[in-house]
Amino acid sequence: MAVKGNAVVGQSGGPTAVINQSLVGVIQAVQQTAGGTIDRLLGACNGVRGIKEGRFIDLKGLAADKLEAVAQTPAAALGSSRDKPDADYCKAIFDSFAKNNVRYFFYIGGNDSADAARIVSDLAIEAKYPLHVFHVPKTIDNDLKVTDHCPGYGSAAKFVASAIAGDDRDNASLPGIKVDVIMGRNAGWLTAAATLARQDKTDGPHLIYLPEAAMPMAKFVDEVAEVYGRLGRCLIAVSEGIVNENGKLWGELGEKDAHGNVQLSGSGSLGDFLAGQVKTLVAAKLGGKKLRVRADTFGYLQRSFAGYASAIDQREARQVGVKAVEYAMSGQGSGSVAMRRTGGGPGQPAGSTYGVEFFRAELKDVARDTKPLLKEFINAQGNGVTEAFRQYALPLIDTLPVIGKLV
Amino acid sequence: MAVKGNAVVGQSGGPTAVINQSLVGVIQAVQQTAGGTIDRLLGACNGVRGIKEGRFIDLKGLAADKLEAVAQTPAAALGSSRDKPDADYCKAIFDSFAKNNVRYFFYIGGNDSADAARIVSDLAIEAKYPLHVFHVPKTIDNDLKVTDHCPGYGSAAKFVASAIAGDDRDNASLPGIKVDVIMGRNAGWLTAAATLARQDKTDGPHLIYLPEAAMPMAKFVDEVAEVYGRLGRCLIAVSEGIVNENGKLWGELGEKDAHGNVQLSGSGSLGDFLAGQVKTLVAAKLGGKKLRVRADTFGYLQRSFAGYASAIDQREARQVGVKAVEYAMSGQGSGSVAMRRTGGGPGQPAGSTYGVEFFRAELKDVARDTKPLLKEFINAQGNGVTEAFRQYALPLIDTLPVIGKLV
Repeated sequence: MAVKGNAVVGQSGGPTAVINQSLVGVIQAVQQTAGGTIDRLLGACNGVRGIKEGRFIDLKGLAADKLEAVAQTPAAALGSSRDKPDADYCKAIFDSFAKNNVRYFFYIGGNDSADAARIVSDLAIEAKYPLHVFHVPKTIDNDLKVTDHCPGYGSAAKFVASAIAGDDRDNASLPGIKVDVIMGRNAGWLTAAATLARQDKTDGPHLIYLPEAAMPMAKFVDEVAEVYGRLGRCLIAVSEGIVNENGKLWGELGEKDAHGNVQLSGSGSLGDFLAGQVKTLVAAKLGGKKLRVRADTFGYLQRSFAGYASAIDQREARQVGVKAVEYAMSGQGSGSVAMRRTGGGPGQPAGSTYGVEFFRAELKDVARDTKPLLKEFINAQGNGVTEAFRQYALPLIDTLPVIGKLV
Repeated sequence: MAVKGNAVVGQSGGPTAVINQSLVGVIQAVQQTAGGTIDRLLGACNGVRGIKEGRFIDLKGLAADKLEAVAQTPAAALGSSRDKPDADYCKAIFDSFAKNNVRYFFYIGGNDSADAARIVSDLAIEAKYPLHVFHVPKTIDNDLKVTDHCPGYGSAAKFVASAIAGDDRDNASLPGIKVDVIMGRNAGWLTAAATLARQDKTDGPHLIYLPEAAMPMAKFVDEVAEVYGRLGRCLIAVSEGIVNENGKLWGELGEKDAHGNVQLSGSGSLGDFLAGQVKTLVAAKLGGKKLRVRADTFGYLQRSFAGYASAIDQREARQVGVKAVEYAMSGQGSGSVAMRRTGGGPGQPAGSTYGVEFFRAELKDVARDTKPLLKEFINAQGNGVTEAFRQYALPLIDTLPVIGKLV
C-alpha cells in the first residue's frame, strides 16, 4: 500500500515549451488518483533551491482552466534553478522533505536533475525514510539516455524546422549564404531537426554541422563553396557546439583565430565569426566573388517561443507527469519515466503509425551522462543527417508549415 | 474601357510572411475578373531585375490548390530584388513592358518600390503609352505613408509578441537581464509590438527602446538598474536602429566605444555590445552584483518564420492584391492600394469592431519617404509605448498565445 504523506513537485534547468505540461500532468494525476494518499502537493519555487529554502506553494486545489492555461505556457511556471546539488545540498533537500512529511518527490528536468533525484533517493533509503522519487524527463537537447526521445524536443524541433523552412524561402528569394546557429552544446539532436524543413532536393539546409562530427575550417569552406557554385546560394545549419579537427569548440577558438577583433563570448558571436570566414575564405575560393552573407543565432526562442508547441510533444509531456504519479502510487519505488516507440520511425514496421508506451527506468541509468546524436543519424560526409533521422524526428513535431513554390 | 494587353506582377525588397498572399490576390483577381482584358499574366522573376532581363513566368493558368500553398509560404515566391531603379533602369523596365505589350504592372513592395512604380508610370504617360501601374504595399517595418498599416507587419508583430511573451516567462523562471534586438532600422513599429506580450504589470518587456527616442547610455543603465532593483529581473526590447543623444546609431558607435574588442558589424553584435554594457555599467551601479545577462537578436525569423502568420494580416495582404487589379481594371489610372481603419483602435468608437476599407492612394504620396512610429505612441520617458499604440496594434496580430502563471 502506498505511503500517506505530502508530495513535492519541482522544475529544473532550461525552459522548454512543454515543461508546464508535465507539471500539470503531475498536479492532475494527484488531484484525480492520489487524493486520498497525497495530502498536500507542494510546488517548489525555483527547483531544488526552493526545497532547501522551504519556498513552496500549494497546488492541489488549482482549478482545471487555470491549469490548462499554465500547461500552454513555456518555461517553468514554478521557477527554475541552475543549481547542481552536491551531497551536502541533497542532504538539505532530504532534511526539508523529512521536516514537511514529504513522501513523494517529482522532479522535472534533465540528466542533472535525474542525478539529484538519485542522490536524494539514496539518502532516504539509507535513513530508512520511505520516499518515492520520480524524475520526469525534460530537455530540448533530446540527450537523455534510455528514453526514445525527450519531452520538449518535439516543440523545439518544430520551431527550428519552421524557422529553417521560412529562412530557406528567404534565402531563395534573395540569394546568398546564410548561417543559422542552433542550440545544443553537446548533442546535435536539435540542429539535426533543421533537415525536417527540406521538401525538395535543392531546399536548404544544404549543410548541417553537428557537435558529433568534426568541422575543420577547410572542409567547411570547401563544402560551402561547392553548394554556392552549384545553386547560387547556401543555407547552413550549425550547432553552437561544433568543433574543429582537434575536438575544440569553434565558439571558443574563434576568439584567438579571427582576423582583427572578433570576440566570441557573446550570443551572436559564433554566427558572426563563421559569416566572416565565409566572406573571406569562401569568397576567395570563388575567385574573389562578393558574397551576400548573413548569420542568425536562434537563441532562447528555440526553447521558449510561445504559441507554437508540437501537439504531440504537449500530449507526451503531460503523460510523463501523469505516469510519474501512477508509478509512485503503485509502489514502483523510485525511477525516471521513459518512452519506448511502438510504431513510426526507424526500426519500426514500414508504414506503421507513430506511438509510444511509457515505462519506468532506473534513476542511475538516466542520471549524469547524456546521449549524443546516434552515429546512424549522421551522414558519411559529416555535413548532414540520414533518412533514418528524418523518420525518427518527423513524427515528433506534429505538423510542418505548408510550403508552396513557383520557381 | 480597360485597355487590353498583358500584365506583369513582381515582388521586391525584404521578405514578409504574407507577401505571397498579395501575389496570389493579384493572380486570382486576374483569373476571376480580368480574364477577358488581361491576356497573359507574367510573373517577373526577382522583381525589377527580371523585368529588365526579360525573365518572366506565366501565372494565369495556375491551379487554386497550388496558389493556396504559395500564399501560405513566407518570402517572395517569384524571387525578390534589392535593386533601386534609377531613371535609366526605369527606362529599361518601360522598354521591356512596351516590347511585351504590358499594360498593367502590379508591384508588391515598400516605399522604394512605390517610387520605381511612380517613375515607370510617369515614363508611360510621357510616351503616351497606356499603362496602369499599381503598387501593392508590403513591409514588416510598417513605415509606409498614407495607409493605416502595412501587410506583413501584423505577422511580424505577432512573431515578436509571441517571442517576447515566451522569453518573459523564460526570464521569470531563471531571473536575469535579457536584451532582445528587434528589426526596424529607421522605424520603431516592430519593436513597439513587443509590448503586446504584456498581460500583467510586472510582465516584460520592462523597457522598450525605439529609433525615434534617443537612448543615451547613462539613461539605459539607470533604467535597467531601476527595473532590476525592483523586480530582480529585466527584459529589454531594443530596435536595431537605436541612437544615442546625438542621433548616432549605437549599432555603429559601439565599435569605437566598447571596452576591448567588440566588433559591431555582425548580426549579433548590437545585442552583445549592450549585454557587455549591462555586465559592467549596470552591475557597477548595483554595487558590483554579478548579473546573469544574455542577448538575442531575432534576425530574419521575424520576417520569414513559416507557419505562424497573423490570419488578419493574411486576409488583408490577399485583399490589397485583389484591389490593385480591381482599381486598374476600373480605369483608376495608377496608384497604390492603402487601408483606412473603420473600427477598433485609437480614434475609433470605443468597443468598435476592427475593420478596414481599401482605397487608392497616389504613388507620389507613398513613394520614397517613410513614416516613423507616431509621437503619441511613444511614452513620455522614451522607454516604452502608450496604451494608444497597444490599441492600434493588437487587432493586427489576430491571436496572442495563452499565458498562464502560478507565481
